[in-house]
Amino acid sequence: MPTIEQARTWYASSDPVHDFEHILRVYRMADRLAIEEGADLEIVHAAALLHDAEGSAPGSETRASHHHRSAEFARQILTDENWSEERILAVQHCIRAHRFRQDGEAPQTIEAKIIFDADKLDVLGAIGAARTLGYSALNHQPFYFQPSQKFLDSGEKEPGEPHSSYHEYLFKLKKIKDLLFTQKARALAAERDAFLIAFFQQLAAEQTGEK
Amino acid sequence: MPTIEQARTWYASSDPVHDFEHILRVYRMADRLAIEEGADLEIVHAAALLHDAEGSAPGSETRASHHHRSAEFARQILTDENWSEERILAVQHCIRAHRFRQDGEAPQTIEAKIIFDADKLDVLGAIGAARTLGYSALNHQPFYFQPSQKFLDSGEKEPGEPHSSYHEYLFKLKKIKDLLFTQKARALAAERDAFLIAFFQQLAAEQTGEK
Repeated sequence: MPTIEQARTWYASSDPVHDFEHILRVYRMADRLAIEEGADLEIVHAAALLHDAEGSAPGSETRASHHHRSAEFARQILTDENWSEERILAVQHCIRAHRFRQDGEAPQTIEAKIIFDADKLDVLGAIGAARTLGYSALNHQPFYFQPSQKFLDSGEKEPGEPHSSYHEYLFKLKKIKDLLFTQKARALAAERDAFLIAFFQQLAAEQTGEK
Repeated sequence: MPTIEQARTWYASSDPVHDFEHILRVYRMADRLAIEEGADLEIVHAAALLHDAEGSAPGSETRASHHHRSAEFARQILTDENWSEERILAVQHCIRAHRFRQDGEAPQTIEAKIIFDADKLDVLGAIGAARTLGYSALNHQPFYFQPSQKFLDSGEKEPGEPHSSYHEYLFKLKKIKDLLFTQKARALAAERDAFLIAFFQQLAAEQTGEK
């Protein structure tokens, strides 16, 4: 079984949006959900530690395929640890399915659903707000910019309209809670989503001088 | 009178913690407070636009003296605009006193108190949280790190203890609201401070697995 200290060496990023603290939060949350759901803890722990291990640097060319690269990396690590083929495949499924989009590999097992949910919970709540704001700062984007009517209607920006944290909230973060699979994660997501809404409403109100 | 578009050229930073959006927020807030207090709008507007104009880049050697440098820069700009010596001195006092510490130049006039308050309100509330988190991201510091008992008691960190956003909140942001001068700013600060407390409590609770 890979250890947390071993996993730390796989993650080089020093930015707080994608650093090892994200892995630790996903690990702890996945552990909590796995106990709740009676899932295989060893599969869940290994997948949590390995899910972003290769090519996940934001803005990099490999970001879009990092779930495939990390699944291949997981095979190497777990083969070295003498895991069975069946259990390696189970971890690889969790890793590939954590980046599920409409055309991707949907989570099929309870372990994959847990990894998906734990990863998504980390973009909600105060930590989700913090990561979104940190991402904007690192990419020289504003925290708030009044969205155009076009963006509000279609999600497409006007020419020259910056992608502020507030845009990210409207376009992506608001929809996350409806994607989750497990009951416990959905309950936590409801609370975190309410917090996120309150945060971005307050941000907008302060910017426009209402508060 | 310097215009907003003219002022924009004085601020080169593209990071959202200290960019021109901060100047615009201080300008709007100072305008609001000045109307409330019956202060001299021209002095307040000029001081808001000029208060960080020279040497305020975070981490730079000039940061600690940027209020003096910006006051000198203001003299040049306002002399070119044929302002009287008396009114130039009034603007310079606002600019120097915006960085009031225990041993500095305390705000004496209502205009200086307004600039001080408007600048400090921008580190409270959702925008204050956003700027603090963005600053951490830009400086490769974590959003949350469990503070040591030593830090909680004294504000001094243990060797190796990172300065997380949460540390900044405990050490500095929590105390801001008690520094403000004008009644309207104090009322706004109370609300923004409550929001900031709720935010950092939620952040800590999510990190420790309570929420």
